[in-house]
Amino acid sequence: MIKARIVVTLKNGVLDPQGKAIEGALGTLGFEGVSGVRQGKVFDVEVDGTDRAKAEGDLKAMCEKLLANTVIENYAIELV
Amino acid sequence: MIKARIVVTLKNGVLDPQGKAIEGALGTLGFEGVSGVRQGKVFDVEVDGTDRAKAEGDLKAMCEKLLANTVIENYAIELV
Repeated sequence: MIKARIVVTLKNGVLDPQGKAIEGALGTLGFEGVSGVRQGKVFDVEVDGTDRAKAEGDLKAMCEKLLANTVIENYAIELV
Repeated sequence: MIKARIVVTLKNGVLDPQGKAIEGALGTLGFEGVSGVRQGKVFDVEVDGTDRAKAEGDLKAMCEKLLANTVIENYAIELV
């Protein structure tokens, strides 16, 4: 079994109102000097088998088809 | 300026219906042998200053107070 972590983040230039809201909330809580907050998603996945190259290919296909919206999001796959 | 990435994941034993739904959807799309899907959140944050120890302390406080629900979630802070 192969474990993987997929991190999906918004592309540069794509507005992130959720991140802005968090930034504002952190300011309200008294944390100063915080900027550029961007929120993304992380998926921990387990894939059967031991072929890491095949697993990486499958995970890439999963990102393209379901996990990430590649118009506005980047993804990074990391095998653990 | 210090950049950091915070990863918030559900603790072991906490049910993750969203992860289960993704797992089901991946199966429907024809990806076999995928299990244990867990979804979490990632925050990219920029903190003013150059004191990495202070930044790490501040980020930890942000997680405890706002970014993670420590009853059901773990967080990991990584300075970039």
